[in-house]
Amino acid sequence: MEIDLTILGNSSASPTRDRNQSGQYLKMGKCHILIDCGEGTQSRLLKYGLSYQRIDIILISHLHGDHYLGMFGLLNTMSLNGRKNDLIICAPKELKELIELHFAISNSRLTFNIQYIDLGADETFLENEKIQIQSFAVKHRIPCFAFLINELNVRRKLNIDVCEKLQIHQKYFNKLKDGEDLILENGTIIKNERVTFDPEPAFSYGYVTDTLFLEELCSNFLGVQVLYHEATFLDNLIDRAKMAYHSTAAQAGRFALKAFVSQLVIGHFSSRYTDLNDHLEEARSVFPNTELAIEGKCFQFK
Amino acid sequence: MEIDLTILGNSSASPTRDRNQSGQYLKMGKCHILIDCGEGTQSRLLKYGLSYQRIDIILISHLHGDHYLGMFGLLNTMSLNGRKNDLIICAPKELKELIELHFAISNSRLTFNIQYIDLGADETFLENEKIQIQSFAVKHRIPCFAFLINELNVRRKLNIDVCEKLQIHQKYFNKLKDGEDLILENGTIIKNERVTFDPEPAFSYGYVTDTLFLEELCSNFLGVQVLYHEATFLDNLIDRAKMAYHSTAAQAGRFALKAFVSQLVIGHFSSRYTDLNDHLEEARSVFPNTELAIEGKCFQFK
Repeated sequence: MEIDLTILGNSSASPTRDRNQSGQYLKMGKCHILIDCGEGTQSRLLKYGLSYQRIDIILISHLHGDHYLGMFGLLNTMSLNGRKNDLIICAPKELKELIELHFAISNSRLTFNIQYIDLGADETFLENEKIQIQSFAVKHRIPCFAFLINELNVRRKLNIDVCEKLQIHQKYFNKLKDGEDLILENGTIIKNERVTFDPEPAFSYGYVTDTLFLEELCSNFLGVQVLYHEATFLDNLIDRAKMAYHSTAAQAGRFALKAFVSQLVIGHFSSRYTDLNDHLEEARSVFPNTELAIEGKCFQFK
Repeated sequence: MEIDLTILGNSSASPTRDRNQSGQYLKMGKCHILIDCGEGTQSRLLKYGLSYQRIDIILISHLHGDHYLGMFGLLNTMSLNGRKNDLIICAPKELKELIELHFAISNSRLTFNIQYIDLGADETFLENEKIQIQSFAVKHRIPCFAFLINELNVRRKLNIDVCEKLQIHQKYFNKLKDGEDLILENGTIIKNERVTFDPEPAFSYGYVTDTLFLEELCSNFLGVQVLYHEATFLDNLIDRAKMAYHSTAAQAGRFALKAFVSQLVIGHFSSRYTDLNDHLEEARSVFPNTELAIEGKCFQFK
């Protein structure tokens, strides 16, 4: 499964001249997930050539404006352009009320159905054949949730050379990828391991934003491939971070270290900072494999 | 009084790759007015170096998202940056409910007071020493209002040469600008006309958006200096315009012509158009002194 993560914004609370607020577009195979949707997200999707109509699932961590104010315009644009496919919105329950009030006042009806999933607990709230998404409560001024997105049922890879040598018809390929043995018409059994390779490890993505540094949360993200963790402040403002229920770049690094993740991406930078290199340096001093969430950057993980 | 009008967006309904939604920043002397506030307006204010903290009055024509969705983020940013000054918001009454619900859900309190003025009729709803603002109901899918902003009490201009010749102390200058005669300490009366010039004509700005072409509305905008009129479609889509309660570029020109305005600015272009020259040509064929509302363009009227 191809995994692309495009950053749509990395600024906390207010935008800056060149940094928009939170939003990420995660493409996992055929599943397109928007994670948070700050004001201006639909413009960023256009700018970076990402299709808003292909979004299947929207995850909203919490109801501070910088994480959800782009929702109304995005839904409106989807509708104006004739969307028919259902959309799943996973968010604190009050978002439904806000969306319905907005569209009632503007006398507008959407052309598609929304299926709301209320976030409220540490649970698996969405699962299909390909992915599973879990929420975990974090500590912020209002209810706020971290997400863990796991790839499921990663398929085995065909050993094409052996398949060709054994003249296996391609109609059997899906079964083989699913790990099944093959019984040919003459009764011969071909063991799966003979014609396939082990699958790549399942991809997992953790998204932890707008929270105090929560050491006890690490156990839920053990060994994930990629962790996004907010880094609103630098460590010299750790008291300010605590007061505002946010984390520092060093704390994001510590979280990644304790959770034994493979890669850390930091974002949600306070608008007071114009140069983000200090954040990168500070996080890397704790957890070297760290990258900045820079708007427009597309991480390709597989 | 210096008058600057900066265009913050000109796209209707949805943004395009390079066109944001409705928003205009009108500076009339010391009075700073934001007219409509589509999603992303705060980013445009930053981009064009306009101070959001100096905005005194916000006018919202109607509650379709492309005209007000930037309000919540803008108010939040004003508050995060410690605004103390009152803000006047003139809008259909439901906006207050939406704003209060948003800030209740996000558990946020603004650092400044908002004075709401509900739009609901053809009336002068705001007047101070310097300006007067009137609203007029237009015809759209939901209640929507045009605005007429008039400069008041334009002051006379000093004839500096004569003032110097007569050795008039500058402490009298304000009285002279206000049109008063001068009685010197020795009892001599200096008639105002002798030491001042007539003032420049008062500035007036009409803002007419999201409406069917309404000929009967013209009489309210007779002789205004600058008229902004929406031109969502070209005239070859006039039926589409009617159905959507919008106007065409030619209709905007006709409105300007019938209202005997000095200058027309057209905007609110449908996202289906990539090149706006056809709009300009069409409107100019009816009313030659027409300009496009191009994002970032600053019109200086005095």
